[in-house]
Amino acid sequence: MALLDIEKRVLASLDEEGLLHTLRELLRIPSVTGDEAVAQRWLAGQLQEAGLAVDLWTIDVAGLQQHVAFPGMEVERSQREAVGLVGTWQGSGGPGKRLIFNGHCDVVPPGERAYWSYDPWGAVQDGDFLYGRGACDMKGGLVAALYAIKALKDSGVALSGSLQLQSVIGEEDGGLGTFATLLRGHTGDAAVICEPTNLMLMPAQAGALTFMVRVPGKSAHACVRLEGVSAIEKYVKIHHALMQLETQRNSNITHPLFGRLALPYPLSIGRVQAGNWSSSVPEELIFEGCIGVAMGESCQAVRDQFVQALDRLAMDDPWLKEHPLEIVWTGGQFESGEIAIDHPLVQCCEQCVQDLTGQAPEFAGLPAGSDLRLLVNVGKIPTLLFGPGDLNRAHMPDERIAIPDVLQAARTYTLLALRYLQ
Amino acid sequence: MALLDIEKRVLASLDEEGLLHTLRELLRIPSVTGDEAVAQRWLAGQLQEAGLAVDLWTIDVAGLQQHVAFPGMEVERSQREAVGLVGTWQGSGGPGKRLIFNGHCDVVPPGERAYWSYDPWGAVQDGDFLYGRGACDMKGGLVAALYAIKALKDSGVALSGSLQLQSVIGEEDGGLGTFATLLRGHTGDAAVICEPTNLMLMPAQAGALTFMVRVPGKSAHACVRLEGVSAIEKYVKIHHALMQLETQRNSNITHPLFGRLALPYPLSIGRVQAGNWSSSVPEELIFEGCIGVAMGESCQAVRDQFVQALDRLAMDDPWLKEHPLEIVWTGGQFESGEIAIDHPLVQCCEQCVQDLTGQAPEFAGLPAGSDLRLLVNVGKIPTLLFGPGDLNRAHMPDERIAIPDVLQAARTYTLLALRYLQ
Repeated sequence: MALLDIEKRVLASLDEEGLLHTLRELLRIPSVTGDEAVAQRWLAGQLQEAGLAVDLWTIDVAGLQQHVAFPGMEVERSQREAVGLVGTWQGSGGPGKRLIFNGHCDVVPPGERAYWSYDPWGAVQDGDFLYGRGACDMKGGLVAALYAIKALKDSGVALSGSLQLQSVIGEEDGGLGTFATLLRGHTGDAAVICEPTNLMLMPAQAGALTFMVRVPGKSAHACVRLEGVSAIEKYVKIHHALMQLETQRNSNITHPLFGRLALPYPLSIGRVQAGNWSSSVPEELIFEGCIGVAMGESCQAVRDQFVQALDRLAMDDPWLKEHPLEIVWTGGQFESGEIAIDHPLVQCCEQCVQDLTGQAPEFAGLPAGSDLRLLVNVGKIPTLLFGPGDLNRAHMPDERIAIPDVLQAARTYTLLALRYLQ
Repeated sequence: MALLDIEKRVLASLDEEGLLHTLRELLRIPSVTGDEAVAQRWLAGQLQEAGLAVDLWTIDVAGLQQHVAFPGMEVERSQREAVGLVGTWQGSGGPGKRLIFNGHCDVVPPGERAYWSYDPWGAVQDGDFLYGRGACDMKGGLVAALYAIKALKDSGVALSGSLQLQSVIGEEDGGLGTFATLLRGHTGDAAVICEPTNLMLMPAQAGALTFMVRVPGKSAHACVRLEGVSAIEKYVKIHHALMQLETQRNSNITHPLFGRLALPYPLSIGRVQAGNWSSSVPEELIFEGCIGVAMGESCQAVRDQFVQALDRLAMDDPWLKEHPLEIVWTGGQFESGEIAIDHPLVQCCEQCVQDLTGQAPEFAGLPAGSDLRLLVNVGKIPTLLFGPGDLNRAHMPDERIAIPDVLQAARTYTLLALRYLQ
């Protein structure tokens, strides 16, 4: 289907140079989860400048934590302001459909500087790529959505309905920002989360549960280590048991979007810490990680399987039998979530990609937790994940985004918004 | 052999009450390795009061580190004073044999308070036991030696030769204090280290080398963890390889004192740290531990075996082959050391125990590094390990010492000193 003249006109209003400039500036503002206030306030200024009606507020974290559906949180926020930010553009044509673009501005820590070839906060361009923590996950998508809304507004096209940009915090550790945004009353008829899907359409998202496990040991001088019980040695056994659980959970996956993935529902250990002296047997080991939640599977079912796997191990280990592991479901508790693969929002986006590129987009399921499940399950808003960037680049050194992909995403958002509101 | 009258008289001069009072006070002074200055200055006051000639000096750590035989160090000392302390009593009878008692006042960190039933710095007495970090390793032995010297001095017995108490620091992380004491010129004809040997005679000490290994990984988002390489997963393989190496190194041990031990030359992992986010694949893991050095084995031979075991592993692991482990021999580098089991010092001590208790003492080899190898190998001073306390209690929560054992050690030191100088 060829583009209509009005569509071409709106697409021509997309300020690509401004988009990249804004993205570079945003990449230079560190916004590791828990420390997003500066970035949010700066973004609020951008939304204001773009002419959106801005809602910038301090999130009552302690209050939200009392809520039964609170999605979990890992970072300590008691001493730091949590800031919500929504910008809305009302079309000139009166009430109509309301489309949301949602993106998180928080990023994971950059890790060791030595692993980066570029300053993680430098927004260095090298060839077609912009480098920096958050380039791909997901400041690229967030700024692309802002400029799509600007394009529609700047084009002067008459539209009914509204477009909304939700810039959220705390996505990486649970979804505080989107949860707070929903509870503040911001809603819509459909939403696109601009997460890096490599421009694939992802109408489904696996869940992920973050856990922390304390492994007890018994300290002793290293020279008589058999008198102690090494928490590290116990961990090694636990590690094997958990990898076995992962294998079991990933056999015979039949979901059309997930069955094709190499590892649809990973179990990953992200942190391990044990011991305080090279010559002492460590009396404690703490490990943290996350486990995927399958489509249609409840979080509780996953927790039960996890606990049972460790219980089985403890049955054969006299020490662990007497000294039980302490399992805490801390931080992000992401349910899985999905909408129908032929939902009108999905079909509309599919057609936009087809018309803009001449090629049908690919579909996939996101093997990670995301705010989709909050928008769908809590907010009851049909939601699609679609954005620029390779998820494999997320959370890594030399995170980067391809500039052509950011622009392609912005064009798609622009066309999608135009068609969805019309 | 019955005790002589003069021996009985000297033993009667042993101030047991004063000994326990001083031990309690010393236990209340935290002296974790690196922070021993307060304890050393306090002890200097005790030595002064006891009438010994005191040498209290600031150790030139940076200078000693240049020495080819520097025994290694783990803690950071650049901002903290390292204090040497020696107290000497010259017998009234002029020159003669010089006997050294050596003990370290540094202790390992107490670890989590929650694991202790008693304040680690409280010196609480419960039944026959005194509880506290360092009670057994080895403030008990150190104070027992001080009071043995006092007993000889206070008894007024005429002796030629001299007795010396070396209160050293930095034993737990290499042996800085004893090394500094030797290089300052303090020497003798024989030495007893008052380490907790459970009142067994230990004329031999296995060595121990402290290592730090950096395991490289490749970061990735947990949800696509196969795109990354988990440093933790690599560690699990390494752990198995190292445990296998330990098994090999402990088969067919024929040394008379070590062959009988359950695990003469342990390989123990004391610390593990990896990752900075539960949902990221960890790009690095650091582990620290120590490996025993067998009697007659060179440190270099052990290092070579360790490196070879990890090299063999890397040969079968494409990632590790391309991304080599970084192995650093940091901190304590304890050679093994021994003197003949029938050395006159050993025989003299054996007879003292026999005469005081009516029972022959047991002999054993110490499976841990200690300052013995410095006194023997660097100082060329025949040295015996003999002291109160169960090494299995060292480095553990609720470290404790049996009061009767401390007093028994003090009596043995007193009699040994008297007989050795006569």
